[in-house]
Amino acid sequence: MFKKILVANRGEIALRIIRTCKEMGIKTVAVYSEADTDSVHVHFADEAICIGPAPSKKSYLNLNHIISAALVTGCEAIHPGYGFLSENPALVDACESNGIRFIGPYKEHIEKMGNKAEARKTMIEAGVPVVPGSKNATNEAIEALGIAEEIGFPVMVKAASGGGGRGMRVIHNRDEFINKFNMAKSESSTAFNDDAMYVEKFIEEPRHIEFQILADTFGNIIHLGERDCSLQRRNQKVLEEAPCQIISEELRNKMGQMALRAAKAVGYVNAGTIEFLLDKHHNFYFIEMNTRIQVEHPITEMVTGIDLIREQIKIAYGEKLNRTQEEIKIQGHAIECRINAENPLENFRPCPGEIEGYLSPGGYQVRLDSHIYSGYTVPPTYDSMIGKLIVWGKNRTEAIQRMKRALDETVVTGILTNIDFQKTILNNDKFLINQIDTSFIEREILSNSLNVKEG
Amino acid sequence: MFKKILVANRGEIALRIIRTCKEMGIKTVAVYSEADTDSVHVHFADEAICIGPAPSKKSYLNLNHIISAALVTGCEAIHPGYGFLSENPALVDACESNGIRFIGPYKEHIEKMGNKAEARKTMIEAGVPVVPGSKNATNEAIEALGIAEEIGFPVMVKAASGGGGRGMRVIHNRDEFINKFNMAKSESSTAFNDDAMYVEKFIEEPRHIEFQILADTFGNIIHLGERDCSLQRRNQKVLEEAPCQIISEELRNKMGQMALRAAKAVGYVNAGTIEFLLDKHHNFYFIEMNTRIQVEHPITEMVTGIDLIREQIKIAYGEKLNRTQEEIKIQGHAIECRINAENPLENFRPCPGEIEGYLSPGGYQVRLDSHIYSGYTVPPTYDSMIGKLIVWGKNRTEAIQRMKRALDETVVTGILTNIDFQKTILNNDKFLINQIDTSFIEREILSNSLNVKEG
Repeated sequence: MFKKILVANRGEIALRIIRTCKEMGIKTVAVYSEADTDSVHVHFADEAICIGPAPSKKSYLNLNHIISAALVTGCEAIHPGYGFLSENPALVDACESNGIRFIGPYKEHIEKMGNKAEARKTMIEAGVPVVPGSKNATNEAIEALGIAEEIGFPVMVKAASGGGGRGMRVIHNRDEFINKFNMAKSESSTAFNDDAMYVEKFIEEPRHIEFQILADTFGNIIHLGERDCSLQRRNQKVLEEAPCQIISEELRNKMGQMALRAAKAVGYVNAGTIEFLLDKHHNFYFIEMNTRIQVEHPITEMVTGIDLIREQIKIAYGEKLNRTQEEIKIQGHAIECRINAENPLENFRPCPGEIEGYLSPGGYQVRLDSHIYSGYTVPPTYDSMIGKLIVWGKNRTEAIQRMKRALDETVVTGILTNIDFQKTILNNDKFLINQIDTSFIEREILSNSLNVKEG
Repeated sequence: MFKKILVANRGEIALRIIRTCKEMGIKTVAVYSEADTDSVHVHFADEAICIGPAPSKKSYLNLNHIISAALVTGCEAIHPGYGFLSENPALVDACESNGIRFIGPYKEHIEKMGNKAEARKTMIEAGVPVVPGSKNATNEAIEALGIAEEIGFPVMVKAASGGGGRGMRVIHNRDEFINKFNMAKSESSTAFNDDAMYVEKFIEEPRHIEFQILADTFGNIIHLGERDCSLQRRNQKVLEEAPCQIISEELRNKMGQMALRAAKAVGYVNAGTIEFLLDKHHNFYFIEMNTRIQVEHPITEMVTGIDLIREQIKIAYGEKLNRTQEEIKIQGHAIECRINAENPLENFRPCPGEIEGYLSPGGYQVRLDSHIYSGYTVPPTYDSMIGKLIVWGKNRTEAIQRMKRALDETVVTGILTNIDFQKTILNNDKFLINQIDTSFIEREILSNSLNVKEG
């Protein structure tokens, strides 16, 4: 096994990786910016090297400094975490040319999946369903109708030059097509001086469902079930669950097989996530693949009993997966709430600053992945996430009750957080009966309770 | 379900019970002494009542005050936790005569099992193996030899009036019996002016193995496997594990059946623990039953996925067990380290005082049951346990690695703790290969490393 690994990240994910390395008997080297001198990841690593000033470009995104830090400390591998350089092919290249193992997929996987158009093309060729849509833009209503009928209603027509909802229409059937298409087209023409339109499938009440996969260098590949990450605000996930309770075992198998097919299509290696949209009729469509560990990976760990960071390291070292698909059992239900230093009542403005009082939650089936402590100053430089609270329950109801209890006992003073906002979600009637989709937070939470509170 | 429960305890177990009540939607009333005004259990409960000054006799052992607190707040039930009044039949009586449900067994269970002689007699009648021994004391070597041969060698002869190891001998075979018996007898005669001797089975390399059982009021009873609590210092458990990896599935079933038989022999109801000694030949002997929740219950929760406090409350309310013995699955391995405010280098002298800095451990499969925080003052009045660190791993090795990691990242400053002492155990070669018994800490840890450190 590796003797020493450099962790090219900060905050909770750096700590997360160091924890598993310690348990595996692997020494760790932390890198840190000048803003992170007092960060826990710096103190928990066996060695730590300052790689530059606070701005990410000068430190956590400074490829040369990170490679130098790995070389000078004799690290055999680099774990990139998420964000920063984790999906940057240049880091993989630099690792390779310096004889350092990159704990993640190969360069070509990152490149192929990082390019949306190419990823979509690869998936279509592999027979993985993507959101159906016209290949080219058109301004001909009849031609567009033909495409719409091929795709199947409802469809969305949208301006090729569009944005902000203008030149966009949902069309539910043939009869209203020509009219609505022309309205959208003329709107587009006026707004963007371009009447070219795309037609694509309209996904009704979409859920964001992602499958965790693990693939070794020997061609073995398994999936670890799905996460429901529908609760988002401006495409940022807020609360995640595993499994998705509306997915039947049959559908899980079907989607899981598609996830494996998607990964196999590029010969993928290491941990990765295949993201799908699932509509209310339980049709699903590939949207993208993340070629790194994800923020929400702990909920998969809670329901499978598998340490994903450990698996990543083992795969990168060249070990075989020691589990078959049949051995993966999903048990109970897990929820993660992201705890952010932000003010939900002021449009989620980040609220860095010093944490005065801090009481972390604990007890049965409560997990906290966080790097904060009493007296820690959340720097303004990085993203506002200060921790992830994760709970497990026998079923979804029990997990929700436990999460509410754990949030209730969490005390963070000195800065503002989204803890009350998370409680608002957990107390929402529609959330409780699992009636959620990707617009849920915008529609059910932000347009209701918070406005009332602000008013 | 109960609407409101009074928690007649303090510290981590009060918090533990409140947590489950919150998850069940049950309101809680905390009671506290004047020394515990700043205790977390006081703040997390829905209501809190001060029941007297610091000395336990005046507060946590003050039956009248506790019952009055329950009555005045309209509590339907009392959870006693462990220690204090938890095994006091008077509390059960007082509950009954005031129309309050006691969350625990019936009065007669506590009485029967609380009396060592009667418990032993009950077990013998029920066919549960107890440590074989002479019924009456004797000073006749030949008579004693007869008893020894009936019991089987090795045996222990010990002075009826003895103590401190004097007048005590382990005798391994027939040939040496008469000589050694007479030596012990004369030692006893000199020391205690009494030459009456008992003969009992000498348990070789005993492990303390206890079975968790759950019994409802409908006669359903199951066991949840065993805990290995062999690591003790002066009969105080220090580190506990579940399951015991040297116990085969066959032996587990056999001991489990005996545990159920022991509980059935008194018609036991609610959660309880049957304690056995297991010798190196895998013979086992009942030693006692604990008629309450135990400090180390979390490790059973971790390997079974069952919340024991919730089960206690449900049973006391009159619900049926909703699991059969066949549905109980033991998964992976769990370890608990008791964290005490004490100084192992000064004979484990308690070290109360103010906690200045505190960083709690976290991450994958780490659970902390504790009531401390930065700025909390550990009062000198109560026992020195300030928390329980519990980890789960796929197997024992992984659990040990995780516990070492979690202890490494735990920071408590301002007071002394036994964290380093726990690490010494976890790094011991014999512990690592699971070669432990109830003398392990005395023999392998205290007589070695600590003396060296002190010297």
